[in-house]
Amino acid sequence: MPRTVEVTELALRDGHQSLLATRMATEDMVGICEEIDQAGYWSVECWGGATYDSCIRFLNEDPWERLRTFRKLMPNSRLQMLLRGQNLLGYRHYEDSVVDRFVDKAAENGMDVFRVFDALNDVRNLRQALAAVKRTGKHAEGTICYTVSPLHTIEAFVEMAAQLRDLGCDSICIKDMAALLKPQPAYDLVRGIKETCGDDMLVHVHVHSTTGVTLVSLMKAIEAGADIVDTSISSLSLGPGHNPTEALVEMLEGTGYETRLDKDRLVKIKEHFAGVRPRYAEFESKFIGVESQIFESQIPGGMISNMESQLKQQGAGDRVKEVMQEVPKVRKDAGFPPLVTPSSQIVGTQAVFNVLMGRYKSLTGEFADLMLGYYGKTIGPRDPEVVEAAKEQAKKESITERPADLLKPEWDELRKRAVALDGCNGSDEDVLTFAMFPQVAPKFFASRDQGPISVAKSAAEPAKEAVAGDGKAPVTSRVEYKVKIGDKTRKVLVEPA
Amino acid sequence: MPRTVEVTELALRDGHQSLLATRMATEDMVGICEEIDQAGYWSVECWGGATYDSCIRFLNEDPWERLRTFRKLMPNSRLQMLLRGQNLLGYRHYEDSVVDRFVDKAAENGMDVFRVFDALNDVRNLRQALAAVKRTGKHAEGTICYTVSPLHTIEAFVEMAAQLRDLGCDSICIKDMAALLKPQPAYDLVRGIKETCGDDMLVHVHVHSTTGVTLVSLMKAIEAGADIVDTSISSLSLGPGHNPTEALVEMLEGTGYETRLDKDRLVKIKEHFAGVRPRYAEFESKFIGVESQIFESQIPGGMISNMESQLKQQGAGDRVKEVMQEVPKVRKDAGFPPLVTPSSQIVGTQAVFNVLMGRYKSLTGEFADLMLGYYGKTIGPRDPEVVEAAKEQAKKESITERPADLLKPEWDELRKRAVALDGCNGSDEDVLTFAMFPQVAPKFFASRDQGPISVAKSAAEPAKEAVAGDGKAPVTSRVEYKVKIGDKTRKVLVEPA
Repeated sequence: MPRTVEVTELALRDGHQSLLATRMATEDMVGICEEIDQAGYWSVECWGGATYDSCIRFLNEDPWERLRTFRKLMPNSRLQMLLRGQNLLGYRHYEDSVVDRFVDKAAENGMDVFRVFDALNDVRNLRQALAAVKRTGKHAEGTICYTVSPLHTIEAFVEMAAQLRDLGCDSICIKDMAALLKPQPAYDLVRGIKETCGDDMLVHVHVHSTTGVTLVSLMKAIEAGADIVDTSISSLSLGPGHNPTEALVEMLEGTGYETRLDKDRLVKIKEHFAGVRPRYAEFESKFIGVESQIFESQIPGGMISNMESQLKQQGAGDRVKEVMQEVPKVRKDAGFPPLVTPSSQIVGTQAVFNVLMGRYKSLTGEFADLMLGYYGKTIGPRDPEVVEAAKEQAKKESITERPADLLKPEWDELRKRAVALDGCNGSDEDVLTFAMFPQVAPKFFASRDQGPISVAKSAAEPAKEAVAGDGKAPVTSRVEYKVKIGDKTRKVLVEPA
Repeated sequence: MPRTVEVTELALRDGHQSLLATRMATEDMVGICEEIDQAGYWSVECWGGATYDSCIRFLNEDPWERLRTFRKLMPNSRLQMLLRGQNLLGYRHYEDSVVDRFVDKAAENGMDVFRVFDALNDVRNLRQALAAVKRTGKHAEGTICYTVSPLHTIEAFVEMAAQLRDLGCDSICIKDMAALLKPQPAYDLVRGIKETCGDDMLVHVHVHSTTGVTLVSLMKAIEAGADIVDTSISSLSLGPGHNPTEALVEMLEGTGYETRLDKDRLVKIKEHFAGVRPRYAEFESKFIGVESQIFESQIPGGMISNMESQLKQQGAGDRVKEVMQEVPKVRKDAGFPPLVTPSSQIVGTQAVFNVLMGRYKSLTGEFADLMLGYYGKTIGPRDPEVVEAAKEQAKKESITERPADLLKPEWDELRKRAVALDGCNGSDEDVLTFAMFPQVAPKFFASRDQGPISVAKSAAEPAKEAVAGDGKAPVTSRVEYKVKIGDKTRKVLVEPA
């Protein structure tokens, strides 16, 4: 009897986030939800920080309404979200009662599986969110952000897994956002977790495909006992995205492992997104191949393009290589944080500052906070000299406690400010939108009544653009010319295309 | 001690053949040959039927000169070619002495490794070519064309491997042109060959990446003992091409296997082709993702586009699905040939005929020959009714002997006809060019003196001159034309300068 490997479909969240700058509108998803619901997935990832942000910033969509729509259209599926621990879907630490409210509301609106991570792998930053999920009776998935450094050994990751188990996690996710997880470490890490946490502990593996090796890593993770793996339907896969769902299904044939997925439905899902994707062509990631140099730089693809655009804004577009060499140095000085939102932005921006202004001559506020412990603790020690520079510049001391312990209750104040905004409907959901995106929420509340604004081109538009000019060809029938180029004469036949 | 896995680099032949319609000019390769030569490859595939054809048809290059250039620029490398057994690089069977001459000349001009295959896996069609290679002292690689059918069992393939061993092959290649080789069969097949032919028999695995699973298959093949695997540098990889060389190197880290490849040189090779590729954008395969439905249809990607264009020419572009359903039927009736040049074209065209004109109402000459044994024997029996139809239409009987046994010595006649051509230099190489491409060779001989014509250069220029030639510039906006120059049709975008 083959062992069943379960699958999480990423198309509705990380798939289009990685490939189409998170721009896909709900209207381009609803038509295929029934097929997804019936295809045999373990869960459907469909919500997270970037999709929430994109909804209110670009699409004039209420992200909570999107969630309720998914809930209605996929009654048989576990809906899954990505939650940044104490940061929720925002970029700062929230006080515990805000975390509780968010989890309650997400569960109430239909969320089933909460994948909770912290950019520094500081388990203290996961505690409140995981406890809140447990309280709602939903699935609490603790997350290890996979990265590579001299300190990130298999043993260290397995020790973190044990801590997550002790927090009562229903499953443990290995999250490999930069596609750095090679086959052998994938095997060793899953085995290590199973041996330490017990064979019953569900292990869920999330990898990107950027470096081209991670489908092999999924195979090895499965051989080591991984229970659930993440893939994205082929028409929204590869490049900085994920391995294709269909490829996973096919590769397992005859191996002693199998999925529960319905291939006919996968074809329909593929065709749906193959039709949708061209309408978002302007948001396509420029990078669609395989990038193995990430193994050297350990800089995720998205971070490189961020740094490039920062450098260009400073008229220093030619200094990308210097910055890429600076990143590992900054990361080491900061105690080897994984590079994932928001640590990737914080480290990357500081590397840009170092190159443009001299090393640590000027610190960003966020980098100073990172050095002083305000994001939590890192696996390695932080460079004492840089810590001193941070203290001086930020005019504050470093901390060792859980950052959220320093926060005062803030819900009432958030509510007061939110409901004062034009268009706020007074719901806790709206207060949470304001809490997480205080700059964007006011404009969204004010314009929400106008309804969704898709940024996709209509189906006809891309085709129009493909046809050049005004379409009136001056050559309207076949004409043969003799053409002399240099000293060679050729017959050339010209006709309307 | 990790076991060393050897690598064949495909960029110079199958890489650009699969991704850029074989159009890459020698001038775009010479600048990187030194790095390739030093990178640590087991061999460099750089010659075959399509590159030979493209040289004389499109690039006005002498393919033998290209070979000599490679030999000079890569003195430390094994140069490797793909040879269609008794068909050499052409589309018909050649008499044995022509096969001998070709192999002699290829060896003399610098070829080291001859990968010899037959589209029907009829070992009798490999015998002469393999013996000729052995006689020259070069590396004779016998090839199993991998395919999927009720008759193509692991045992049947292993039995073929034993026959190849008995012919004295120095290595055995598993050639998976359609990316159908899944991980478990890859493992089983390599193990089976090793167990039957001995651990010393080198097993060389060639897979395409079209279906997205074959890097995993390479991993499994390596675990089963495969000695050499084929990859293409990342900037000329994926889609209908191959797995990226760098991904292979990285995936093996820590697994107990390793390559001898120099990563720094791989970066240079990658950057070289990343720079070259955009100049051939108009020849890019439209298909760049992953296509798992090939596992159902078993129709290689290139074959589908061929059939599509045939159907469009007949004004029946909407009947592709019918044809795709007809292909497996035709293949079964023909005794389950693998689908590879030329059997893929023969079966595909007959499927088109069947759909347009009724099943077997009209047979192509090639399909009749296939049914009557003139290409060799197939693994399964051929449908007796269709065989009868073939006899009637072709006015000949079926044969069971090796097709080349029916041929009379033909070298002297080929030489006579070749040297009579304007521009033929009288060399055996020129006679071989004429023998293999009798329609194209005359034009090539006549124009050879003008030297290489890269098709990477702007194709719009001649058309612009044609349209604006009278000085009146009738083109006032962007217009797309179809332009025929010689026997090539191009889409050309014309706009005011």
